[in-house]
Amino acid sequence: MPPDTDLRAHERALDLPAPCDAALRFIGRIRTPFERREDCPRQGRPDGPECRIVLDEPWVPALRGLEAFARIEVLYWLHESRRDLVLQNPRRDGRVVGTLALRSPVRPNPIGTALVVLERIEGATLVVRGLDCLDGTPLLDIKPEHCPFGPGAAPAAPE
Amino acid sequence: MPPDTDLRAHERALDLPAPCDAALRFIGRIRTPFERREDCPRQGRPDGPECRIVLDEPWVPALRGLEAFARIEVLYWLHESRRDLVLQNPRRDGRVVGTLALRSPVRPNPIGTALVVLERIEGATLVVRGLDCLDGTPLLDIKPEHCPFGPGAAPAAPE
Repeated sequence: MPPDTDLRAHERALDLPAPCDAALRFIGRIRTPFERREDCPRQGRPDGPECRIVLDEPWVPALRGLEAFARIEVLYWLHESRRDLVLQNPRRDGRVVGTLALRSPVRPNPIGTALVVLERIEGATLVVRGLDCLDGTPLLDIKPEHCPFGPGAAPAAPE
Repeated sequence: MPPDTDLRAHERALDLPAPCDAALRFIGRIRTPFERREDCPRQGRPDGPECRIVLDEPWVPALRGLEAFARIEVLYWLHESRRDLVLQNPRRDGRVVGTLALRSPVRPNPIGTALVVLERIEGATLVVRGLDCLDGTPLLDIKPEHCPFGPGAAPAAPE
């Protein structure tokens, strides 16, 4: 964990014990063109570059049926992030924002989520557009899209 | 972990070592009206019942600025789920689907994600609509909404 001296003005860190409430298993790796943090776009876009999600072999059968979805949700571990900030100064302009009101990678559990376009599946590899994470980011999960506010959302229950 | 004898027809489980790639810290609890699994709706809905997200005290300052968002993303730990299934038979009808092509709580890293309506914030408590998880579910993260396909999505880059 970086020392507090790395904090920007008005940022606040907590002094926390090591996390130990649950454990994660990485199930693959994400390959993107973004090799350094400064290469990463602020947000992925559906017209962004093709990226590859490479699943570890034991999990490949778990893709069965995913090809039916045009868009998928991807969860990944932001492995280079510090986890102890409660207040952040993201633009270094003195505007201080709570960590949970930002989509910054700096958060108590640095899990990234992205809704991406599924271009195709090639064996253990998913080709997608819309990611913004570093090359080599560990994969946690893939889910079919669910957007309760989208055009496919369930209608309100009858009165 | 339940024994393989609990598998439904055609389901397949992996024999895996304990997960140890990264550790999570719970930052609060979710209170819902759903006390048993069979009470949980299949998907949360924006017109669903009010639920409460109760943040642990050290993280309350991290909410600063969140009140500006009408919808937020919530990540939580599906603490009662087995994690070793690659193929599932969700409706017991013989239609076998890969775990990553389902939004079932049974998955390698049982992290639930929901986009919910933020009704109000009362101190350490967020009142929301749209959750479908069990009462007492551990909270992992809260993020402002980001939907790259919604009406507020960035326009395509100029050619």
